[in-house]
Amino acid sequence: MERRIEIEKQVLSENDKVALQLRQEFADRRVLALNLVSSPGSGKTSLLVQTLSALKAEFGIAVVAGDVQTENDAQRLRETGGGQIRAIETRGACHLDALMMEKALVEIDLDDIDILFIENVGNLVCPSSYDLGEEMKVVIISTTEGDDKPLKYPGMFRRSSLMITNKIDMIEMCDFDLEKVRSNAVTVNNSLEFINVSCRTGEGLDLWYDWLRKQVASKKATVCDKSG
Amino acid sequence: MERRIEIEKQVLSENDKVALQLRQEFADRRVLALNLVSSPGSGKTSLLVQTLSALKAEFGIAVVAGDVQTENDAQRLRETGGGQIRAIETRGACHLDALMMEKALVEIDLDDIDILFIENVGNLVCPSSYDLGEEMKVVIISTTEGDDKPLKYPGMFRRSSLMITNKIDMIEMCDFDLEKVRSNAVTVNNSLEFINVSCRTGEGLDLWYDWLRKQVASKKATVCDKSG
Repeated sequence: MERRIEIEKQVLSENDKVALQLRQEFADRRVLALNLVSSPGSGKTSLLVQTLSALKAEFGIAVVAGDVQTENDAQRLRETGGGQIRAIETRGACHLDALMMEKALVEIDLDDIDILFIENVGNLVCPSSYDLGEEMKVVIISTTEGDDKPLKYPGMFRRSSLMITNKIDMIEMCDFDLEKVRSNAVTVNNSLEFINVSCRTGEGLDLWYDWLRKQVASKKATVCDKSG
Repeated sequence: MERRIEIEKQVLSENDKVALQLRQEFADRRVLALNLVSSPGSGKTSLLVQTLSALKAEFGIAVVAGDVQTENDAQRLRETGGGQIRAIETRGACHLDALMMEKALVEIDLDDIDILFIENVGNLVCPSSYDLGEEMKVVIISTTEGDDKPLKYPGMFRRSSLMITNKIDMIEMCDFDLEKVRSNAVTVNNSLEFINVSCRTGEGLDLWYDWLRKQVASKKATVCDKSG
């Protein structure tokens, strides 16, 4: 197994080099890049559909949507008419990597956008190891998945900056405790922020939009400070 | 990336050798070994808790429960008082492999059991590539995850023999169509069997228990034919 670990390290190191270039490019173009990670079916695409519809007049937005197979998510996003949407089919790979991102970004005009959402493959393990040059990871968990997930998949929650709990309209039907999931998450990452939403009813989405506005504003302020 | 693929193949080939030995051992001991795979939070543990409680008097049962971190699942299973329960913490790995299984099985008396459930790490991608010597894979999907999952994660559904749709008590609140998920699944695997259940209300679980009884009976019949 030792040789495998060595090769894995080399691949990650190649990935990190490209991710570093991407991060610099996002900084130069003042683009807020967010890497959205979650289990399959927790609602990443639903969240983005709502977000594109709500904020398309306010911000320039692009989405790179990764899936093992199909372009279903990208198609749903395109129907909002709300941004530049690119699909990556990983063809079996369990995560996006920086090289896939670099390729997808060729077709996106970064000068036209304020926010780049990267919708990663639905997987709570592997995507946590691959830096895509993003500013932050946002982990989405849904009330139907159980409040123990931060303890069971600590790597993902440790590397994320914001945790969005989706499907709070279904919480009564699930054995899911909002306080417990938060305390479990804090155990692995005590600087994590939290927002609770329902993409179905719209509850809480304003908090998410405000969080995005704050991040975009802070990014532009940083750039102004640097140039001033 | 070529060297990585080569090493990956070598690792899989090592895995397959051990899996072959395990498969032979399960056959010799007349043990029905089922590899349960799904997204995080789709209900593998809930299904096993119900199954252990219902069938512990009828069959000898063992469970090997895999998790990235924590022994939470194994603990929930032990509370049923229904079988030999062993936990594997993969410590970051996104799947169980045959070597981990071999190690866990040292502590299980296969002569005492009829059914071995392997509860894999919650992940719809990577566990599909690792043979654990099981007789079949059983893929669990929940109505809260969306009916497009068989198309988005085809490898897992192609390699499974039975698809259990869990949380059917929540179907009214989800945009999930039972006919559609079935036709999507058949597209990638036309010999897949289907059972719909709710681990919360108990609906449909009898069909799952009957399916298990049929598999155990068929396994014993095969052995009798061979010795006869």
